[in-house]
Amino acid sequence: MLTKMCLIMNKFDSVRLRKIPFLKRITILLFFMSLTINAQIDRIEPPFWFAGMHNPELQIMFYGKDIAQYQVTAANSIAITDIKKTENPNYLFVTINTKNLPAASIDFIFKKNNKVGFTQKYILKQRREKSAQRKGFDASDMMYLIMPDRFANGNPKNDSSNDTQEKADRSVAGGRHGGDIQGIINNIDYISSLGATTVWSTPLCEDNDKAFSYHTYAQSDVYKIDPRYGTNEDYKRLASELHKKDMKLVMDYVTNHWGIEHWMMKDLPTRDWIHQFENFTQTNHKRSTISDTNASKIDTDICLDGWFVSSMPDLNQKNPLVLNYLKQNAIWWIEYADLDGFRVDTYNYADPEGVTAWTKSITDEYPNFNIVGEIWMHNQAQMAYWQKDSKVGAIQNFNSQLPSVMDFTLHDAIGTIFNEDDGSWDKGMVKVYDNFSNDFLYPNPDNILVFAENHDTNRINEVYKNDFKKYQMTMALIATVRGIPQLYYGSEIGMSGDKDKGDADIRQDFPGGWKGDENNAFIKEGRTPGQNQYFNFTSKLFNWRKTNEAIHFGKMTHYIPENNVYVYFRYTDKKTVMVVINNSKEDHTIKTNRFQENIKTSKMGKDVLTDNSFDLASEISLEGKSVLILELEK
Amino acid sequence: MLTKMCLIMNKFDSVRLRKIPFLKRITILLFFMSLTINAQIDRIEPPFWFAGMHNPELQIMFYGKDIAQYQVTAANSIAITDIKKTENPNYLFVTINTKNLPAASIDFIFKKNNKVGFTQKYILKQRREKSAQRKGFDASDMMYLIMPDRFANGNPKNDSSNDTQEKADRSVAGGRHGGDIQGIINNIDYISSLGATTVWSTPLCEDNDKAFSYHTYAQSDVYKIDPRYGTNEDYKRLASELHKKDMKLVMDYVTNHWGIEHWMMKDLPTRDWIHQFENFTQTNHKRSTISDTNASKIDTDICLDGWFVSSMPDLNQKNPLVLNYLKQNAIWWIEYADLDGFRVDTYNYADPEGVTAWTKSITDEYPNFNIVGEIWMHNQAQMAYWQKDSKVGAIQNFNSQLPSVMDFTLHDAIGTIFNEDDGSWDKGMVKVYDNFSNDFLYPNPDNILVFAENHDTNRINEVYKNDFKKYQMTMALIATVRGIPQLYYGSEIGMSGDKDKGDADIRQDFPGGWKGDENNAFIKEGRTPGQNQYFNFTSKLFNWRKTNEAIHFGKMTHYIPENNVYVYFRYTDKKTVMVVINNSKEDHTIKTNRFQENIKTSKMGKDVLTDNSFDLASEISLEGKSVLILELEK
Repeated sequence: MLTKMCLIMNKFDSVRLRKIPFLKRITILLFFMSLTINAQIDRIEPPFWFAGMHNPELQIMFYGKDIAQYQVTAANSIAITDIKKTENPNYLFVTINTKNLPAASIDFIFKKNNKVGFTQKYILKQRREKSAQRKGFDASDMMYLIMPDRFANGNPKNDSSNDTQEKADRSVAGGRHGGDIQGIINNIDYISSLGATTVWSTPLCEDNDKAFSYHTYAQSDVYKIDPRYGTNEDYKRLASELHKKDMKLVMDYVTNHWGIEHWMMKDLPTRDWIHQFENFTQTNHKRSTISDTNASKIDTDICLDGWFVSSMPDLNQKNPLVLNYLKQNAIWWIEYADLDGFRVDTYNYADPEGVTAWTKSITDEYPNFNIVGEIWMHNQAQMAYWQKDSKVGAIQNFNSQLPSVMDFTLHDAIGTIFNEDDGSWDKGMVKVYDNFSNDFLYPNPDNILVFAENHDTNRINEVYKNDFKKYQMTMALIATVRGIPQLYYGSEIGMSGDKDKGDADIRQDFPGGWKGDENNAFIKEGRTPGQNQYFNFTSKLFNWRKTNEAIHFGKMTHYIPENNVYVYFRYTDKKTVMVVINNSKEDHTIKTNRFQENIKTSKMGKDVLTDNSFDLASEISLEGKSVLILELEK
Repeated sequence: MLTKMCLIMNKFDSVRLRKIPFLKRITILLFFMSLTINAQIDRIEPPFWFAGMHNPELQIMFYGKDIAQYQVTAANSIAITDIKKTENPNYLFVTINTKNLPAASIDFIFKKNNKVGFTQKYILKQRREKSAQRKGFDASDMMYLIMPDRFANGNPKNDSSNDTQEKADRSVAGGRHGGDIQGIINNIDYISSLGATTVWSTPLCEDNDKAFSYHTYAQSDVYKIDPRYGTNEDYKRLASELHKKDMKLVMDYVTNHWGIEHWMMKDLPTRDWIHQFENFTQTNHKRSTISDTNASKIDTDICLDGWFVSSMPDLNQKNPLVLNYLKQNAIWWIEYADLDGFRVDTYNYADPEGVTAWTKSITDEYPNFNIVGEIWMHNQAQMAYWQKDSKVGAIQNFNSQLPSVMDFTLHDAIGTIFNEDDGSWDKGMVKVYDNFSNDFLYPNPDNILVFAENHDTNRINEVYKNDFKKYQMTMALIATVRGIPQLYYGSEIGMSGDKDKGDADIRQDFPGGWKGDENNAFIKEGRTPGQNQYFNFTSKLFNWRKTNEAIHFGKMTHYIPENNVYVYFRYTDKKTVMVVINNSKEDHTIKTNRFQENIKTSKMGKDVLTDNSFDLASEISLEGKSVLILELEK
């Protein structure tokens, strides 16, 4: 019975009774007494749903011992349009048409041998007003990427949990450190002070792996926030607190795989729910096989079906039940937690047709929602292939439906250029120029995430050994080119980390996130002078960015770098910004007449970083390894 | 009068009277007495034309002192459809409609003040049978690239000429060495013995530059073979001798520029015939500006309009007279010399619309003709943009009409891979695999020129320091992947040359091409043992290639390299070839079950290089740095 009540709780934010004090449990039990639940059901997913969705079909998974032996009907003339049984008698997939159904509970009647066994209530909730019209993040935003276990420990009481295997131990580099949702909520003002408008946190759903669960990409329950991060309600509160400050929340969704500890792995609905192999088979990571007309079938299959790592079973999105499960789960989170976007992990490791349908199901529900996929490729055509309405994809009649991709080729360039002082024909700023020269391949260059680093790469301050001038050039670039800039937590105070030393090194704890941290970088007074130097620059840059429409959606014109000096403009009819990056070690003077088509009649430009004014009449001088961001005055 | 007769001679293969002994001149004069010519005309271009062309319009350029003062009419009701005068009174552009005109001479009557000044005959010649249906080179061919000044001196009498400035001096690395058309003709059997089926010679039209004219890309008369190479008739004979052996001739055409010594430069028809600048302006070489939506106008203009070098004025293909001149000149050479293809120099330095129209005018006349453009870009999308019917080009509503491009990205890879022994994730054979993974971008991957080197790059034997095993892998790759393989003269006997030492080093004289050369690599007995090793391998490889349809137009399936071993298959319904390149230093054994989708029921494979048989049942072993080309036996 307690198990059954757990289920009910699960409906209301997946709180598990087990970790609730006994007396409190009794209260809750009494509260829910009206919803009787039968011993045959262990799980219902989605745990509840919403009235008035664009797609009226809802496929409810009932899980319980031999549940498939029951005949199911719904009360009040509600139409069950489909019932699917699988080879595993413990699952029943019941599809109903919710069109015109009010927000209310539905009675499902389970019969065996024509006798009512039990009745199960299922709730359709009211949607938020204008939920369908929610607007995703876009190029007017700046996205701050957080690994929650490593950011701030807002609630030391939930560092470990009885329900999850790995316990907190901050002394283990790859262990659980205790950071949580409350830690993010506590520091929203800090994040906002940086000029960030959007938070992307790496996954927060339960990851019950024995070790390395802190990254949380091996999820064990995708309807439930990991108790070490908080509750579903906490996550909803994070969104709500961000929204109060006009900020946005992006969830990190994983369509490709679950964790080996996922509850369903112990009793799979169908053998082909995941891709199974005689011997462990890892993906070959060659996503180019998908579009490669010369690729062998075996390579393509292993790319898509092989497991990411041995702890992450690869989901089979070709199975309609799996695909539907993932669609509904994603939509449930948007609707439940009031999300502003998804970042989708390992996007093109999943079955292309399946992940496309998944993506479309979301944008069909929320036409203005944004989804950025991790499309980690090394040439622009391969990346452009994956953006919605791509004409490169159209070569193969493929349309990924994915609104946004990540500029990994820019990231590749940023990883070396500021150490390339000479800027010969294919070095230094030319690499960045060449990157943007390929923008014509993208259907929507403004909807590309631009970044210097993330939780899977070397930290930029490691790449450039905390050379502040190189940091300035990097961030100025990220902040002023087309697309959505993304900053990885901690870089703004100079944090570094070496991927070659292992992932933990690039995912260190943010100083000040733990009680007792000597260095508290969340507040000015707590930061070292060095940290304040980084913070002040970053904060000034991105707060300025927030105000400048030309940077958000203006056109871009760039000029072939000369002497490792790259000049580009972002502009609308009303505003023009001129960016000059001198990546050579030497000071340089550039003649302005070359840029007349953008400077037009402007006489002066004010550097947004220093407030210094520059006369545009004939030439501009700037120091080696420096950047100017000039707002032109008409 | 002599000058006028020169013109007549020019019509018949551009032989200049000046260099013909006086008595012979008299004979020729008598021969042409019937064609009177007036003192007002110095040049007529095209010097003659052909009856029955697909495009009936012919624009004849009459050049002579104040020729524009004349009114022109044509006898026998021939329709003059247009007469264009320019700012220079020495030019008249007269367009006639040749539709249904027989091969015969046309009388143009030049009047001044309503009085006949003179009559000028113009000849329409008979076309070769099936001229319009001529078939260009394709992937069943192997193309041998020759720099004629450096290949063989078949006629020592024409090493220097009175009409051209630079005299032969073999001791000067960048000077004229005396190689010529007769030298190529003399060695057709040698070229054929290599398995080559097509000769691409760098340009042969007159280049009257004071120095470095040996490369001949700065042409001074595009209707006339440079006298140091021979005569127009010799060039026609080269085509004819090649055709006798079922071989093909590809002309190197330059649409982008002429030489500063071009006769027209001294008296330009219009100021905008070429792109002119206040100060010398060189192209910035950034052809990516053409498709770059972020490019500045000034950069794009300088790319297209800037001069390649100061001795090469940049032609303005936006001027319809220039464009038409280039179209007709190209078609004239095809028709006159009986060509099988063009290689077009600096293809995308020219005005894109202009060079597209130029290309289309040729393929409209000769639908089966092939044209390969020098599209020297460093990513596949940028190159694919330029192939006819490209869907990448279509993103910008651009269709270059160019049937074939050059695989410069493969060339980039070949320039390093065989020195990369470890083959980690982005090194070694992976680079080649990645190249072909992008074939989906090309509308026609079979019509791509594949090459390890050309006259503008390091020689492959320099890159690999004459490591014969690396040469073998390189050539085996070139010979077996999709596309048209191209071999640069001399590599087949191990010639090397270092681009860093200057162009002359990669364009050395072929040993045996000059009387008195101690080493004569044209014949087996004359070759050193080392040269024979290279030659025998190359000859065996490409002669085998000639016979194998699966290599010509078969499909390709490739497999992700493992341990720096790259495996791919070329196949038709009837034949299958399996290529295994082990680029690691270690011996490797590959299990054949991975390749079942291509091996199918074949039990054995015979290596075309060694005739050794390999059992395909379970595994194949091969030495480090070696290649197998297995014909599978059904």
